[in-house]
Amino acid sequence: MSRIALGVEYDGSAFRGWQSQPVGPTVQDALEAALSGIAAHPVRVQASGRTDTGVHATVQVVHFDTDAVRPDSAWVRGCNALLPPSVAVRWAQPVSDEFNARFSAHSRSYRYLLFNSPVRPALGATLSGWFHRPLDIAPMAEAARALCGEHDFSAFRSSECQAKSPVRTLHRLDVRRQGDWIAFDLGANAFLHHMVRNIVGALVEIGCGRRPAGWAAELLAQRDRRLAAPTFSPCGLYLVGVGYDVRWGLPQQALHRLPPIGPSLD
Amino acid sequence: MSRIALGVEYDGSAFRGWQSQPVGPTVQDALEAALSGIAAHPVRVQASGRTDTGVHATVQVVHFDTDAVRPDSAWVRGCNALLPPSVAVRWAQPVSDEFNARFSAHSRSYRYLLFNSPVRPALGATLSGWFHRPLDIAPMAEAARALCGEHDFSAFRSSECQAKSPVRTLHRLDVRRQGDWIAFDLGANAFLHHMVRNIVGALVEIGCGRRPAGWAAELLAQRDRRLAAPTFSPCGLYLVGVGYDVRWGLPQQALHRLPPIGPSLD
Repeated sequence: MSRIALGVEYDGSAFRGWQSQPVGPTVQDALEAALSGIAAHPVRVQASGRTDTGVHATVQVVHFDTDAVRPDSAWVRGCNALLPPSVAVRWAQPVSDEFNARFSAHSRSYRYLLFNSPVRPALGATLSGWFHRPLDIAPMAEAARALCGEHDFSAFRSSECQAKSPVRTLHRLDVRRQGDWIAFDLGANAFLHHMVRNIVGALVEIGCGRRPAGWAAELLAQRDRRLAAPTFSPCGLYLVGVGYDVRWGLPQQALHRLPPIGPSLD
Repeated sequence: MSRIALGVEYDGSAFRGWQSQPVGPTVQDALEAALSGIAAHPVRVQASGRTDTGVHATVQVVHFDTDAVRPDSAWVRGCNALLPPSVAVRWAQPVSDEFNARFSAHSRSYRYLLFNSPVRPALGATLSGWFHRPLDIAPMAEAARALCGEHDFSAFRSSECQAKSPVRTLHRLDVRRQGDWIAFDLGANAFLHHMVRNIVGALVEIGCGRRPAGWAAELLAQRDRRLAAPTFSPCGLYLVGVGYDVRWGLPQQALHRLPPIGPSLD
């Protein structure tokens, strides 16, 4: 028995999220079907975390166990021949049996891409969020700074969130504009359910002038989801990185990848 | 009766090209249906040119005639409410009856986006071409220079091309790499059927070392489509600009727009 880690890219537009569920196609289902075909036995994968319906990943990390002996390239090229066009395995690497894609991950990074223009986007319509009124970046960036650090993020947590604690450490929340595009870059030890989309929703309220920059800190202090902004569209959300200790031997640069759409910021 | 010009963006992935035809949905059908809804009479549009199945436009320019009196914003916002998500009107402007989106256009610009990586893209899979072997930009750029100027482009013309003359003036053919992306920027007075995709096909043959840089000039001289490379995928092709004389009063910056995907080169 050996354990293999994979880096997986997917366009979430046509999927009911990452995780297998009774109704609708999921990325996990598609990946397990392809891996089972290559392994010639049923394969179950464990991912770094779930993503919701319509959310994308430039790099989702998973692991699985198999008795099959295959070259690393078979797990990549073989799977890609069996996967639908909207899912691709980018790399495969044998790992220690102690590695766990979910529990070994010490951080996750997301990018939210927002198209800010009076006219909705037709190209890549399911690959970005959209807001039609002008957004002022300065108060959004000020609010973002207030959200960084270790906080109780109850105000930004879905009512369906299953996490035991609402406390998370947000290492990074950058808001930058390039032309009609705004990119939100977030890094944390872990994220609560809907946390990124709820933060983006609040920052958009601030950016369009409906709320002052100080509102984000107020929401944090109130810890009440009902007082915060609506959850923003999943279309612009990308899982772009998963952090693991170097001792696992994963290729560090393969653990972070930006979306091919939107502005080219760093 | 008044004449209106529109700038239209579309994701060609789900369409059987621009032009109305007996089978399958086309961008023209979708646009005419939406405009007819706003005008409250049947509207027929004339575009700067056709695009093939799967080809995109960041700016296609069209004109139509109408008796309806509507604010410019109704042609934009009203149509966008009726159009499918993959088509959007970006601007509308009244023009002289002598303006014709096709015959007044003095130039067209295309960008071809190629993802050059061993692994196929899953994100935006229908928004870029893909080539798996490493490509060397230097001989591709050298070959591109030989194609610029006024030439008989018979070697790069589809057998179904209906143009009277195979002579076109290629003003620009830039080939640039940024990371895993290669962008081909082409400008000409007009293009023959499949001309961009056939040029990209030839340059890829040169870039991967199957042919020398001088092959492009040979193909030009031979004027024989059967000797050239296969037509490259439509997925990476974008109509990105249409040139009109300033006397028509169209907003010049609205006549050129780059795709939201791929590298951000100029």
